[in-house]
Amino acid sequence: MFQVDLNCDLGESFGAYKMGNDELILDYVTSANIACGFHAGDPHVMRKTVELALEKNVKIGAHPGFPDLVGFGRNAMHLSPHEVFNIVTYQIGALQALTTAFGGKLEHVKPHGALYNLAAKDESLSTAIAEAIYAVNPEFVLYGLSGSELIKAGEKIGLKTASEVFSDRTYQADGSLTSRTLPNALITDDHQAVEQVLNMITKGTVQTVQQTSYPIVANTVCIHGDGVHALQFAQFIHQRLTESGIQVTPFR
Amino acid sequence: MFQVDLNCDLGESFGAYKMGNDELILDYVTSANIACGFHAGDPHVMRKTVELALEKNVKIGAHPGFPDLVGFGRNAMHLSPHEVFNIVTYQIGALQALTTAFGGKLEHVKPHGALYNLAAKDESLSTAIAEAIYAVNPEFVLYGLSGSELIKAGEKIGLKTASEVFSDRTYQADGSLTSRTLPNALITDDHQAVEQVLNMITKGTVQTVQQTSYPIVANTVCIHGDGVHALQFAQFIHQRLTESGIQVTPFR
Amino acid sequence: MFQVDLNCDLGESFGAYKMGNDELILDYVTSANIACGFHAGDPHVMRKTVELALEKNVKIGAHPGFPDLVGFGRNAMHLSPHEVFNIVTYQIGALQALTTAFGGKLEHVKPHGALYNLAAKDESLSTAIAEAIYAVNPEFVLYGLSGSELIKAGEKIGLKTASEVFSDRTYQADGSLTSRTLPNALITDDHQAVEQVLNMITKGTVQTVQQTSYPIVANTVCIHGDGVHALQFAQFIHQRLTESGIQVTPFR
Amino acid sequence: MFQVDLNCDLGESFGAYKMGNDELILDYVTSANIACGFHAGDPHVMRKTVELALEKNVKIGAHPGFPDLVGFGRNAMHLSPHEVFNIVTYQIGALQALTTAFGGKLEHVKPHGALYNLAAKDESLSTAIAEAIYAVNPEFVLYGLSGSELIKAGEKIGLKTASEVFSDRTYQADGSLTSRTLPNALITDDHQAVEQVLNMITKGTVQTVQQTSYPIVANTVCIHGDGVHALQFAQFIHQRLTESGIQVTPFR
Repeated sequence: MFQVDLNCDLGESFGAYKMGNDELILDYVTSANIACGFHAGDPHVMRKTVELALEKNVKIGAHPGFPDLVGFGRNAMHLSPHEVFNIVTYQIGALQALTTAFGGKLEHVKPHGALYNLAAKDESLSTAIAEAIYAVNPEFVLYGLSGSELIKAGEKIGLKTASEVFSDRTYQADGSLTSRTLPNALITDDHQAVEQVLNMITKGTVQTVQQTSYPIVANTVCIHGDGVHALQFAQFIHQRLTESGIQVTPFR
Repeated sequence: MFQVDLNCDLGESFGAYKMGNDELILDYVTSANIACGFHAGDPHVMRKTVELALEKNVKIGAHPGFPDLVGFGRNAMHLSPHEVFNIVTYQIGALQALTTAFGGKLEHVKPHGALYNLAAKDESLSTAIAEAIYAVNPEFVLYGLSGSELIKAGEKIGLKTASEVFSDRTYQADGSLTSRTLPNALITDDHQAVEQVLNMITKGTVQTVQQTSYPIVANTVCIHGDGVHALQFAQFIHQRLTESGIQVTPFR
Repeated sequence: MFQVDLNCDLGESFGAYKMGNDELILDYVTSANIACGFHAGDPHVMRKTVELALEKNVKIGAHPGFPDLVGFGRNAMHLSPHEVFNIVTYQIGALQALTTAFGGKLEHVKPHGALYNLAAKDESLSTAIAEAIYAVNPEFVLYGLSGSELIKAGEKIGLKTASEVFSDRTYQADGSLTSRTLPNALITDDHQAVEQVLNMITKGTVQTVQQTSYPIVANTVCIHGDGVHALQFAQFIHQRLTESGIQVTPFR
Repeated sequence: MFQVDLNCDLGESFGAYKMGNDELILDYVTSANIACGFHAGDPHVMRKTVELALEKNVKIGAHPGFPDLVGFGRNAMHLSPHEVFNIVTYQIGALQALTTAFGGKLEHVKPHGALYNLAAKDESLSTAIAEAIYAVNPEFVLYGLSGSELIKAGEKIGLKTASEVFSDRTYQADGSLTSRTLPNALITDDHQAVEQVLNMITKGTVQTVQQTSYPIVANTVCIHGDGVHALQFAQFIHQRLTESGIQVTPFR
């Protein structure tokens, strides 16, 4: 039986600022990547999000990012691999303590935004991230873009890795995501989005914009958490996957 | 045989800003309280300080403070016990990960500055701090002002506690520290400072400014880390205690 | 003819975080108090808010607060009057430059949150704020709670002052606002809220919760900017005041 | 008679962290570039530095940088020209208010660190910086690397510009500074450093590492402020320039 994990970035509120529908989206996903206070989140939001995830029995992971609240961690920062190791370790630890304090267990780590994107293509950054995760706990699962340098770095160091795919992004003939600056980057039709994921899971391939088929590993699907449609889509994809005989379950 | 721990606040540099003589002072102390990035320190400074402490075989503790870099954590902030729990847990976790990542072990927690001072007198804040420490790891030792609410809160919850005394501060008849705003708050003579500590350890009392004797528990002595004299005094007190037959050793 | 100013705190978004309906609320208010990046806002939000206010021909003022993004400037911080002078001056200057850069003119200053509340009762803090404003430009108008120490400090130093009243808060027999911790602190009926303001403007008094009448100066009414109801109420009070023959116009 | 300005980056302390010998170096320089709280400095340090500069009759300029305290503004950040305009305007305004509040006048703006370096080569960033300065006050002088895009952008928009040269850096045949990663980047001999500046001022050329002569405009020399040697060199170059008949005076 095919299995897939649905993961969502959560805990992205900050102080008086609310972002996302954390409480509602947790009903449809199996893994929560919780922001750690560098690009979003604060200790109070982190604790509340951990408590919600525990209540809903959703797996908890750290979602470390660049230290850039104003830019929401979306701008590349020129940190050395040494520095990236330090900020990733710091953030994992912060969330881990807030998780164990409430009887939970940190299970995975998924880098955020520009850190995720840079790591997808940069071997030294990826290695630094993988080393940080391994150093804190070699049992953690590393979440990264399917086929990326990050996944390779994780495998090389001996981490379990979860290859992430996107339902609402198109793929290029080389397996990379179509740049958001291009008009055909997004899949806006929900049925088509689910269809793409079903193919990835059951056939192990993705149909590219060049109409070729590219092999892809799909362990976990990125689910968005912000906005009304995001919530509807989460519910929809969860239901459609289940109806198609795919078990929606945390990655192991 | 009498024993005492010498602890010092370390890792208080930040980015390009240097503070303290961490590398040198580590030769004379047995426990390092490392700042966690809220009032001082950053992930890079924390990592470097952990590495130094491991090299010098000095016990590592977290030194969480209020989130106030400009004020160095010295100004009281109006956070609820709930919020204090969260920021303390977050900071302990961040340092813990950077410690375990390098093969070390986090052993103790000592609150910093205004958080330390408020907790000394406030039962609910103290309880929040003790609960945070206990929740992360009930084996951690809580460092707090000897005779304070913080020590009481730690004992109540079942934590090991290390009662901290000061060599260079005078004490009042009720066992409290003389306010720094008063002229006789500080002991500037090094011999007199060591004498006070020797009495605390061997007799279990401190001579107050009112010329009374007050019972005091002295498990650990606060050693300052900044400035040339601090370094000389650390060396001096370490030598004098040893010569007086007191074993300078980490608190256990 | 009676006149009144309607002011609203704006520019409280931050990075990716949206707060308020700035663009819509600007149609109903005459003065905008723009956050300056310490408790809310960032340089990009400030610039956009200035541009919107200029477009809608709404007067621009600075809304300085304590440096506390996580707490949204709502927690009291223990800064000295000297330090408050510095942070207020800094924030005024930052917004002033972003205003003049787009051909606008900074007209007033209203402290935010805990700074506003502390200044209402503390003469030395109030004086520091008034001195900061005066030092940057003695033509600026100081907005403060009607009857507060802040208004007195402004008058003493020679600033024009705008006494602020609240439509949705009840008043005590001594003229102070009922604490938000009390059940009768808020006026939730819109008609009653407008009635209170009409009485303040036309009779110069407010009916207190103790059923006494207290003299009050009402130069400007605080209008909230966040939430759907806030927008409806802004439209409603603007219309009702106008219908009652009161000119809604910037304070001068 | 030849003239030259000596400028120094000042006000780079932060909270409890001290950096530089601001009070002493002010005796030898004619223009102070004061950090504005984004990469260094805070409102209290800024105010104190302004007061010192006014006392010593040194011209005051803003020294805006990227928002990066941990990196001291030395890492490139990916901000758009639009965003750079906003952060530069914000910082200029903050310092301007703290300067005018004490009876002073802001005279110039010199970008810091990575912002300075990026602007030297990037036309759109340079234009954004020049536009921000011009928008706040077209009378401000723009300080930038001699021969850089920043100087060109300033001239194009109609700002007065001060071309900055370095006494302790070597130059390449194309007029650029030798990269610090190369072994011959620095001039460590004080006499040679002064000789380079004398040639720049009196002959309008610099001898390059390729032994060619390159034309250079030298309106102002960058003087370092941190460390004992920096202070000695400031005194030395001031004395040697004066003895050589060059008037050390603020740029006008």
